[in-house]
Amino acid sequence: MASSLLTSSKLSPFPSPFTSQKSSPFLPPSTSLHFCPSKPPSFPSFPSYSFPRSLLVSSSLNPNPPSPLRRPLYIPNHIPDPFYVRVFDTTLRDGEQSPGATLTSKEKLDVARQLARLGVDIIEAGFPAASKDDFEAVKAIAKEVGNAEDENGYVPVICGLSRCNEKDIKAAWEAVKYAKRPRIHTFIATSGIHLEYKLRKSKEEVLDIATSMVRYARSLGCNDVEFSPEDAGRSEREFLYVILGEVIKAGATTLNIPDTVGITVPREFGQLIADIKANTPGIENVVISTHCQNDLGLSTGNTLAGACAGARQVEVTINGIGERAGNASLEEVVMAIKCRGEHVLGGLYTGINTQHIVMASKMVEEYTGLHVQPHKAIVGANAFAHESGIHQDGMLKHKGTYEIISPEDIGLERSNEAGIVLGKLSGRHALRDRLKELGYELDDEQLGNIFWLFKAVAEQKKRVTDADLIALVSDEVFQPGVVWKLDDLQVTCGTLGLSTATIKLIDASGAEHVACSVGTGPVDSAYKAVDLITKEPVTLLEYSMNAVTEGIDAIATTRVLVRAEKSHLSTHALTGEAVHRTFSGTGAGMDIVVSSVKAYIGALNKMLGFKEQFQTKSSPERSPVSA
Amino acid sequence: MASSLLTSSKLSPFPSPFTSQKSSPFLPPSTSLHFCPSKPPSFPSFPSYSFPRSLLVSSSLNPNPPSPLRRPLYIPNHIPDPFYVRVFDTTLRDGEQSPGATLTSKEKLDVARQLARLGVDIIEAGFPAASKDDFEAVKAIAKEVGNAEDENGYVPVICGLSRCNEKDIKAAWEAVKYAKRPRIHTFIATSGIHLEYKLRKSKEEVLDIATSMVRYARSLGCNDVEFSPEDAGRSEREFLYVILGEVIKAGATTLNIPDTVGITVPREFGQLIADIKANTPGIENVVISTHCQNDLGLSTGNTLAGACAGARQVEVTINGIGERAGNASLEEVVMAIKCRGEHVLGGLYTGINTQHIVMASKMVEEYTGLHVQPHKAIVGANAFAHESGIHQDGMLKHKGTYEIISPEDIGLERSNEAGIVLGKLSGRHALRDRLKELGYELDDEQLGNIFWLFKAVAEQKKRVTDADLIALVSDEVFQPGVVWKLDDLQVTCGTLGLSTATIKLIDASGAEHVACSVGTGPVDSAYKAVDLITKEPVTLLEYSMNAVTEGIDAIATTRVLVRAEKSHLSTHALTGEAVHRTFSGTGAGMDIVVSSVKAYIGALNKMLGFKEQFQTKSSPERSPVSA
Repeated sequence: MASSLLTSSKLSPFPSPFTSQKSSPFLPPSTSLHFCPSKPPSFPSFPSYSFPRSLLVSSSLNPNPPSPLRRPLYIPNHIPDPFYVRVFDTTLRDGEQSPGATLTSKEKLDVARQLARLGVDIIEAGFPAASKDDFEAVKAIAKEVGNAEDENGYVPVICGLSRCNEKDIKAAWEAVKYAKRPRIHTFIATSGIHLEYKLRKSKEEVLDIATSMVRYARSLGCNDVEFSPEDAGRSEREFLYVILGEVIKAGATTLNIPDTVGITVPREFGQLIADIKANTPGIENVVISTHCQNDLGLSTGNTLAGACAGARQVEVTINGIGERAGNASLEEVVMAIKCRGEHVLGGLYTGINTQHIVMASKMVEEYTGLHVQPHKAIVGANAFAHESGIHQDGMLKHKGTYEIISPEDIGLERSNEAGIVLGKLSGRHALRDRLKELGYELDDEQLGNIFWLFKAVAEQKKRVTDADLIALVSDEVFQPGVVWKLDDLQVTCGTLGLSTATIKLIDASGAEHVACSVGTGPVDSAYKAVDLITKEPVTLLEYSMNAVTEGIDAIATTRVLVRAEKSHLSTHALTGEAVHRTFSGTGAGMDIVVSSVKAYIGALNKMLGFKEQFQTKSSPERSPVSA
Repeated sequence: MASSLLTSSKLSPFPSPFTSQKSSPFLPPSTSLHFCPSKPPSFPSFPSYSFPRSLLVSSSLNPNPPSPLRRPLYIPNHIPDPFYVRVFDTTLRDGEQSPGATLTSKEKLDVARQLARLGVDIIEAGFPAASKDDFEAVKAIAKEVGNAEDENGYVPVICGLSRCNEKDIKAAWEAVKYAKRPRIHTFIATSGIHLEYKLRKSKEEVLDIATSMVRYARSLGCNDVEFSPEDAGRSEREFLYVILGEVIKAGATTLNIPDTVGITVPREFGQLIADIKANTPGIENVVISTHCQNDLGLSTGNTLAGACAGARQVEVTINGIGERAGNASLEEVVMAIKCRGEHVLGGLYTGINTQHIVMASKMVEEYTGLHVQPHKAIVGANAFAHESGIHQDGMLKHKGTYEIISPEDIGLERSNEAGIVLGKLSGRHALRDRLKELGYELDDEQLGNIFWLFKAVAEQKKRVTDADLIALVSDEVFQPGVVWKLDDLQVTCGTLGLSTATIKLIDASGAEHVACSVGTGPVDSAYKAVDLITKEPVTLLEYSMNAVTEGIDAIATTRVLVRAEKSHLSTHALTGEAVHRTFSGTGAGMDIVVSSVKAYIGALNKMLGFKEQFQTKSSPERSPVSA
């Protein structure tokens, strides 16, 4: 048999999606890689094809949404359309485990709402056993977002992660059970290195734990159970087939195959999925999923290779955030499938309304403090920018010469079409309308606050652009509950040294507190003055600032990350370690020292919000179990 | 014949590297994909295998470098070792075309030296026809870096880009000819959309231009000519085979296959390379190269797929910078080949000394102003970070559980092993030694300047860490030539508004200039005061700041990007458009207002440096030719 042969997709016959590939007579079990089926010219009138042809949530950005997306009915262990790829977003679980990305419950809820607007099929809302606040956040998302069914029957599945032990699984179930479509996701490592050094268990023990815990999850009444063999990329194939086959028997409905350390290359990961599909007993009764870390920069390629080889769920995060080099990014995977699904990925498609991508990206960037580099694919600042300059007429008559995605497809307006620019004569209505077009629905109090901020900026800056507005709104809307509020600040600094700051803060009861301090610079002196008042010992871990618009009079956004010296502990899902929580804060304004202080107070408020919420709980509640 | 069959690499026989795959009896031409040959158990004693087994430049970071890398002799159109992949770095050409990434000649030379330390095989040093300063920078690199042969015979090829016209090619040759190994790289678009909308030429015309221009390049005395069919990813296969076959006859030695718009997926790009290898007459006499843009986040995957399909040159940039979403990143491609070359990529390897990756990444980030996101693979701040916390003993006994690359491999010290921390009692020798260990060789004057900066910081900060030192050195060493220098600055600001700055600058002649200004914030007022003195109208495009170390008393680095209102034009290689140059500046210090002013003055000095260098030239010199 030809041994250097990769059949191009045009030669692939269209395999029946309802036949296990195992039964194909010409495919030897462990060396076959199932390519994406070529899309048949027309859909067969097959009873199992059920296309409600439901519209996704209609977009406020585009009054004429593109042709209706079809989303097959949700059945936990089966997708009625073989071309449909489920998008499982784990921004709130894997993404939030990134250093410094801690989100408050309110922020998590905001992100979950945005994920529902995007139309993701499954939201992994957190790791409920990590701490009481993780539990509450997942529960809140399950109750609200998990029940907000739209007119077409779309509502995201709400999923909670759990290690393979009864306490974790119980916690996950207690958090997600309020959703219309709850899912428990449980995992245990299967690679030799993890068995030996992390779990210190034999394969038999792991097999027994996995099957009994999947059975336990089902016994709680959950009919949608996902199982992941952690570090599958480095696990022995034969052991994988056995453990996956057994968990299917135990009731798992989705099998997720994580490349936990991001070590595989696309062809290899595709082969892994193909091998699992070909060799796991009962695989035809479940959905296969990918979960690719990005350590070698290959997560998007690996995810697509997995989908081409038969996976029909992809685990991704907004902006590709996550521990170390992060995960496959939702926007890259989804846009690759959108651009190339029809032609080179055999007809694959997702249910994502891509026009909400930019807003989701900005929200996650803002809340987590994990900035996106200018050359990040799809959502980076330069992704659609060409070197600014004189467009010589006649040279580039056609956008398609260098552009394969239209910015409008992801909800980004071309900067030269930004259109309405507000100025100091613009009124409250104009502001509200523009913010609504930008995707922000504000209540009257919020609008009132922003209006005055807007006026203050417009007094000093002729053109208030969308970017300015978004910075102001973020400062208002994305702020945590207020404990301390900045009233006045006065600073002197310069090359002489001896910077001095005087600060007036107002506490929750309305009382004023004044302090002054000397420091090495204006921010140092101001932060020290804040510390004198708040008496909350924290370590400043990160400090960064960006101007949001061009021009010397631009609004700058400051972001800080602090860690409490006192204990704010959580449990890490994979390692089981107790980890210190960190808190980010942002502040926007035209004076960088003022915005720096706002950001610092924002971070302190976020930290104090956590504390207040759980101050009556004892610390063991926050670092509950070990695997 | 089985049509859904991808042969796994273990089954691939080892094809003779010296036989064109076309002659393989069982491979039909346009559907075969050549996989990486499995590495044979031992190297055959074949006369063409010539391994000087030369050591790369020895690393100052590691006194005991890993086992000697072998680098085959350099022959333009042939690589004696079929497993060796040439690394072609285009940071200075494609990377520098990123919005805002303009580098001065001195900075380009610094980057080129660092690329030689890395051991890249080919440095694409620029696009000499773009402007007089681009030409001079390439020439300077050719003269210095292109002749710095080490004891093992390694010296990088210096390459200049040119469009397919005599003037561009002549300019490229005049710039690179001083190198020991000069290369001309010429390109013309071959896709239907580019032919129709950009070139407005027929295929016959393009074919004629390409062959005659390759012939012209050879006629100048250049025996190393690379040709790229731009937008190959979207070009008709048959036309590609024809044009590539003809340019080989005309004397091309490397054929580069660019996915100019980043639209392909790995399997597809691999297939493109395989098809070209199988169908282009004379392909066995040249080296095939990949050039993958990252628009869908697939550039690393595509590059590896290309290498597996037979490409033996990969075009990459440090940090993956480049227009839009950038290029395949050197560090990802190189580390993927290093980690997986032996086992899943059939034995591929490169000649890169990976211990210089971190320094190269930092230098390029610093000079271009294009920051790297925290979750960037390999070089992001979080790439090796795990959520900070209490390491429960016994949980993670083995680094390999979650780590596939050791930080030391890329020249990164583990933060908890950073070791020597300097303090205010440390002397000049201790500082020099530590800086040398960090890779900075400074002359006495530079060391003197940094020593006083260091003392000033050490007075106020107990522990001066490596990150602090690097920020200070960058501020000194990475600064452009001085035109204006900050002497004194005094600022008041706060919530009252009416920030006021008083500034004293010293000009090149030593004269003092003082001005004051009111502004919307401390930076605005200070920048306005600078403008009053320098009288250089610029637009501030970007402003950002980061603290380099933890703690409220951290050193902050500010980065600004400005665009001259007066003309600083260059020619864009691909579009032929005239583009405005932009200039970045950085400043470090413990007072963010002072560091902001330093950054601004740095950017102005960089701009003025350009102006001075070419003020005698007329403007047409700077936007010379159109394709």
